[in-house]
Amino acid sequence: MQVHELPTPSLLVDLPAFDRNVATMAEAWPGDRLRPHVKAFKSTSVAKRLAAHGHHGFCCATVREVIGMAAAGLGADLLLANESLDLARLTPMVEEGRARITVAVDSEETIDAAVRAGIPEVLIDVDVGLPRCGCDPADAGRLADLARGQGLGVRGVMGYEGHLMREPGDTKADLVERSMALLNEAHAAVGGDIVSGGGTGTWDVNSWITELQAGSYCLMDTEYTPHAKAFENALAVWTTVISTSAKGWGVLDAGLKAFGMDHGDPTVIEVGDCWFVSDEHITFGIAEGASVAVGDRVRVLPAHVDPTVSQHERMYVVDGDEVVDVWNVDLRGW
Amino acid sequence: MQVHELPTPSLLVDLPAFDRNVATMAEAWPGDRLRPHVKAFKSTSVAKRLAAHGHHGFCCATVREVIGMAAAGLGADLLLANESLDLARLTPMVEEGRARITVAVDSEETIDAAVRAGIPEVLIDVDVGLPRCGCDPADAGRLADLARGQGLGVRGVMGYEGHLMREPGDTKADLVERSMALLNEAHAAVGGDIVSGGGTGTWDVNSWITELQAGSYCLMDTEYTPHAKAFENALAVWTTVISTSAKGWGVLDAGLKAFGMDHGDPTVIEVGDCWFVSDEHITFGIAEGASVAVGDRVRVLPAHVDPTVSQHERMYVVDGDEVVDVWNVDLRGW
Repeated sequence: MQVHELPTPSLLVDLPAFDRNVATMAEAWPGDRLRPHVKAFKSTSVAKRLAAHGHHGFCCATVREVIGMAAAGLGADLLLANESLDLARLTPMVEEGRARITVAVDSEETIDAAVRAGIPEVLIDVDVGLPRCGCDPADAGRLADLARGQGLGVRGVMGYEGHLMREPGDTKADLVERSMALLNEAHAAVGGDIVSGGGTGTWDVNSWITELQAGSYCLMDTEYTPHAKAFENALAVWTTVISTSAKGWGVLDAGLKAFGMDHGDPTVIEVGDCWFVSDEHITFGIAEGASVAVGDRVRVLPAHVDPTVSQHERMYVVDGDEVVDVWNVDLRGW
Repeated sequence: MQVHELPTPSLLVDLPAFDRNVATMAEAWPGDRLRPHVKAFKSTSVAKRLAAHGHHGFCCATVREVIGMAAAGLGADLLLANESLDLARLTPMVEEGRARITVAVDSEETIDAAVRAGIPEVLIDVDVGLPRCGCDPADAGRLADLARGQGLGVRGVMGYEGHLMREPGDTKADLVERSMALLNEAHAAVGGDIVSGGGTGTWDVNSWITELQAGSYCLMDTEYTPHAKAFENALAVWTTVISTSAKGWGVLDAGLKAFGMDHGDPTVIEVGDCWFVSDEHITFGIAEGASVAVGDRVRVLPAHVDPTVSQHERMYVVDGDEVVDVWNVDLRGW
């Protein structure tokens, strides 16, 4: 099938660009040094491709992602890198031996939830400067003792320096070092083999962890690429021009329900610039000299990969104009 | 089932508020004077409730919405109030007599697409000031003639004054009158019984149309309520506090994948204010004097109803603390 035969709106993955992104990361963070974050692509098809590159441990952000990964035979080492009090749905996965499941905990309540659900192993999640989940570094040892006292295996610590992903290059490394010092202070008190952290934006400056949690690097978006220049935009939304006006604008058949909008408008490449986005439309100003006709197909680049992918049921994988595969986005929801 | 037993994140509809919204609109725009827009709620369960109130014609924004409505027995009079070149999927619905389907057209290409798909009837979509779809008012008569010449029934015109929904109250009526004068100029050239337009934001000032296209009024959101004060927020996202920090913040288990973000951050009611939203988290500042503990449930109000609903598989319908129904969001995708 050719790309022009696809329905619109639909997600396109540029396979050569995707493969280059995966190879670049795998060279720097080979095998189990990388724990890819499935929240970025929500697809067991993508995860299988990464597993074939030697990455066998994965991060998940939701219970459903963990269940879906385990059900797809990708449960060798799944980390729910997020706090949850609703872990009972994971109990069958553990009891049936379908997955090795570790969950992040940062409080007595989340430790209790892991115990109640029969989750055998945890990481102590540490606040390393991003105001989100994670305990005070000084409290990590106490929580680890508490968890071990209740029969949990404590594999180590995790801490996400998400507030530093977009720091300028000349200050990023220093700030990451200081942030990871907090994590390693906690690790000294907690013990265990794992110090898990980082992301696509700090892949080249975070040398204080045993494993990197990165997901965006596979597909990338217009907002993130300036902060991780080794990786290319491999994701686009494929659209059709459904209307044009002699006053200088055109309209595409993809809108708020096809894009994550928290990082701003998507980018209409080649034919013009995005004016505004409605539920099922992008109105764009037709570029000087561009030829735009009703029925034309246009690639649009999202500004944020994760919440864009999660709006779609599948990704069409293209190599040039050839559609070579379909990857279902099968880990949506909660 | 009680609301505290529901999984999180999930969508909650406050049934008494929903019913009040529906009754308020039905009083002003009774029966077929209202053509509810299913894009706002994407649920045949909601549409059935509106049909029970006497509204038998509906607007759709996507081909899949039309197909789903027809399949659910709600095909009495479905308007695809949007341009599409991919109408062939509707052909079986027309041939099997499962629905009366009318589509919006604003160009020779979209008329051709309707003819090719065997769609029997169209509305001429007119540019009334919103830079999006719609032909020049002066071109509407020519397009109607072209459509009729190709065997299509032309039922009238539509024009959406979306650029005026948020005008201040003292100027809105005048601007809507001027905008609708363009639509009625086109209608004089086109003929037919239908002059379709408007939305929730102009429900009380647009008296120049035969039918109102409104959908948001059923559920509403924080951004829209100031512009249509007769309607209440009936939609919330139900979340759980998964982490708290002694530094003054808490974290909820709903994020970018649970909210439409184009109108800004959601509103964390009662316990604090939203600081920022991540893929699966809201970090909020805990309000002075508020008591927040891990495990607490918190209602969060979305800023934009349409792209919030479309991220969820179902809505839980609540009356007080009782869950009285579940409405599937069964019209997602394209």
